[in-house]
Amino acid sequence: MSSFDKLFSKIDELKPTFINRLAKAVEIPAVSSDESLRPMVVKKAEFLLEQLEANGFTDIQRKELGTQPPPVNDENLQLPPVILSRYGNDPAKKTVLVYGHYDVQPASIEDGWESEPFKLVINEEKQLLRARGATDDTGPLTGWINVIQAHREAGIELPVNLITCFEGMEESGSLGLDALIAREATQYFKDVDAVCISDNYWLGAKKPCLTYGLRGCNYYQITINGPAADLHSGIFGGVIAEPMIDLVQVMGTLADSKGNILIKGIEEMVAPITDKESKSYDNIDFSLEDIEAASGSKTSLYQKKEDILMHRWRYPSLSIHGVEGAFSGQGAKTVIPAKVSGKFSIRTVPDIDSDKLTNLVVEHCNKAFKNLGSPNTCVAELIHDGNYWLSDPYNSSFSAAAKATKAVYGVEPDLTREGGSIPITLTFQDELKTSVMLLPMGRGDDGAHSINEKLDISNFMKGMKLMAAYLHYYAESPEK
Amino acid sequence: MSSFDKLFSKIDELKPTFINRLAKAVEIPAVSSDESLRPMVVKKAEFLLEQLEANGFTDIQRKELGTQPPPVNDENLQLPPVILSRYGNDPAKKTVLVYGHYDVQPASIEDGWESEPFKLVINEEKQLLRARGATDDTGPLTGWINVIQAHREAGIELPVNLITCFEGMEESGSLGLDALIAREATQYFKDVDAVCISDNYWLGAKKPCLTYGLRGCNYYQITINGPAADLHSGIFGGVIAEPMIDLVQVMGTLADSKGNILIKGIEEMVAPITDKESKSYDNIDFSLEDIEAASGSKTSLYQKKEDILMHRWRYPSLSIHGVEGAFSGQGAKTVIPAKVSGKFSIRTVPDIDSDKLTNLVVEHCNKAFKNLGSPNTCVAELIHDGNYWLSDPYNSSFSAAAKATKAVYGVEPDLTREGGSIPITLTFQDELKTSVMLLPMGRGDDGAHSINEKLDISNFMKGMKLMAAYLHYYAESPEK
Ligand SMILES: [Zn+2]
Ligand SMILES: [Zn+2]
Ligand SMILES: [Zn+2]
Ligand SMILES: [Zn+2]
Repeated sequence: MSSFDKLFSKIDELKPTFINRLAKAVEIPAVSSDESLRPMVVKKAEFLLEQLEANGFTDIQRKELGTQPPPVNDENLQLPPVILSRYGNDPAKKTVLVYGHYDVQPASIEDGWESEPFKLVINEEKQLLRARGATDDTGPLTGWINVIQAHREAGIELPVNLITCFEGMEESGSLGLDALIAREATQYFKDVDAVCISDNYWLGAKKPCLTYGLRGCNYYQITINGPAADLHSGIFGGVIAEPMIDLVQVMGTLADSKGNILIKGIEEMVAPITDKESKSYDNIDFSLEDIEAASGSKTSLYQKKEDILMHRWRYPSLSIHGVEGAFSGQGAKTVIPAKVSGKFSIRTVPDIDSDKLTNLVVEHCNKAFKNLGSPNTCVAELIHDGNYWLSDPYNSSFSAAAKATKAVYGVEPDLTREGGSIPITLTFQDELKTSVMLLPMGRGDDGAHSINEKLDISNFMKGMKLMAAYLHYYAESPEK
Repeated sequence: MSSFDKLFSKIDELKPTFINRLAKAVEIPAVSSDESLRPMVVKKAEFLLEQLEANGFTDIQRKELGTQPPPVNDENLQLPPVILSRYGNDPAKKTVLVYGHYDVQPASIEDGWESEPFKLVINEEKQLLRARGATDDTGPLTGWINVIQAHREAGIELPVNLITCFEGMEESGSLGLDALIAREATQYFKDVDAVCISDNYWLGAKKPCLTYGLRGCNYYQITINGPAADLHSGIFGGVIAEPMIDLVQVMGTLADSKGNILIKGIEEMVAPITDKESKSYDNIDFSLEDIEAASGSKTSLYQKKEDILMHRWRYPSLSIHGVEGAFSGQGAKTVIPAKVSGKFSIRTVPDIDSDKLTNLVVEHCNKAFKNLGSPNTCVAELIHDGNYWLSDPYNSSFSAAAKATKAVYGVEPDLTREGGSIPITLTFQDELKTSVMLLPMGRGDDGAHSINEKLDISNFMKGMKLMAAYLHYYAESPEK
């Protein structure tokens, strides 16, 4: 496609329609974590089914996922459906699966919102759309439907087959989705060539990016067990070996205050930096000020952009989250806790093997505890793990997205990774054996899970053009 | 008084009357911590006022203490009264103030009691009295009234003037009592020669003791402040200096797992052991098995009786109680807490100066934090302190109690200290400028704050004889 003029004009022309579609969608308070609002999540799914139908999608399937597993108040609570649909089914074309989620985070005006969170506000002055779900993820999700509508009304053929996979439980752990993807890998999803997930954000507020990596997360617990019950520190202080003192000693061997993990053998598993990766940080729009603004403090461990980004994206980190079983209230309580569990997690990166990491962690903790010579007992264990994800940011899907970014925004996108996990990314990659890309629509300051969530109108409009251009460039790419 | 035969016979004779008085008293659920039960605390005070009146006490005063200070649900909640009364007012006699508390700990049969906690059960087989308050402190408190009744009915003159100070808020911090003692020091209490507190227990279950020391308690908090709000460990882990990692490092410098306090300068303040004190441990009825039974574990830091007792009584100890502001629930939460406060306390002993200790602790924490080179901020501070108490266990009051023990139980009492605090002890000593003694009635296994609280019938009966004999021997002692 030599020019996107006609398509982009149509997108601009349909702006009121698209904003209206988003407004109708976000008015439904589809909070997946609130059981009492489950009917609203289902209602939003039904709204989307209508929209797909009206815009020529075919083979529309409302996939039920059964009852929600415990812990749950209503043991018959049904999971919201996953919506599968197609646009086009031409064997000669590539097939792109687009993922989005229609559920949202909780929100209430009492939290400090400037306006009702479940009512779209169009702020003409700031040129933004404010509502819960605007950027996470109803804006991007409806964006895909809008892109099809624009093609149809402009009379332009969609150059790929599109498959939608829209879920309603993302904010509550994507319950049931892994199993559905596994089931459909050889069914509904069997011809998928690439997966595109639009459920993340630019690094900052100025420059578009493509995201090619996520860290994994291994969560651990060290439990120290002492007396049979909590004891009075007047009577037993100085006489009994205190589990909390042991725990503080063991946790003190995990990491230092400079950001170094002190567990031996982890560093050696981290993939070395290539020249290509090293150079990729040069042009990224990010600075120390960004991390200071985001954390509301001057407590960054690093001052240089490259160091900050590398430690967020490509190096492991260890965080101590808290202690279960000890006094945690305000004021003073003089009890000696009988059993305490320290909680910490390690963010993982290529090529850290999760099992090997767990062995290293458990051995380290056992050794540190043994060195104390305490009569208490200690158990270190993995609570859960989720692997890192890393894609080739120069493959045909990413290249198409880079071209599309250039066409829409006039700049090369930053190639970014993220420090957190989006577990479904890895599931798609592993189950469908395809490349996966994260293509953000919104900005880093959209407040996805905070009050006053917004999506800039320019990000909404350009984001849809980006999606459209991506499909065209990807269709043109040599590989199938 | 050459023989206690007549008095002790009368006490034995009145056994049913005394048990009945105790039964009536403990049936009133005087739980001071439960605002809704405050009328019951007052009702119990009124029952005691009647008992004092009926037994010839004079100048009976119901001292109101005003409204209970916040935090409280009902801001007009009145504190229960302190009951003052006299028996005898002869300037030629010594005056003994006896303290007891009529409020009790909460109790409910659902907690696992064998019988209704607010109903006295007379277990003939085990020869014990079971009820909330039996040993703490309604049994000893009514014991003093019973002693007067026995004297009256036996026609024996009380050789001292007795003053009662019975409060109803002991289990809730003795609110208002310090101020009352200060006010009455030159009024109601102006002629007091000695204070006797019967609100503690034998060390074990076999041998009577007199208690001449209590440790103090200084409670500290180290607060580390980092980012403006809790952060996502995926995005900020490895990039931001984490307050919880700093806190673990600082708390790790406070104490080791062997029971040593690592803060410099504290050890030097501890009074050296005298030969007399050293020898006083020899005959004390206590063993490693006792501490293992009490803690339900084999986690004692010491194996020898003397070491255990000295570390409970005469050496300082440091306990880490918990962390405020960090994750403290079950399971896994990946947040980086923005602000965390570590709580710890130091039990103090002669001659540790509280202010000097606080300076050492604060300096130590500041230095340990500074060594980390963290960009976060740290504040170490005292939350509250209460001084240790130590009496001369060979003064006239203790000597009288030792003779009384020999007369009643046929053995020399163990001279014990306790690891915890009873702050009112120090208040009496400081405000009345008199010696104070702790004269226990019950045993170490009475379960004062636990389920199935009991008082052995023999401890009740012999305890009253001990109180009576103490008053007689103290009256005979040369000093006034
Ligand atoms: Zn999302
Ligand atoms: Zn979200
Ligand atoms: Zn008590
Ligand atoms: Zn008590």
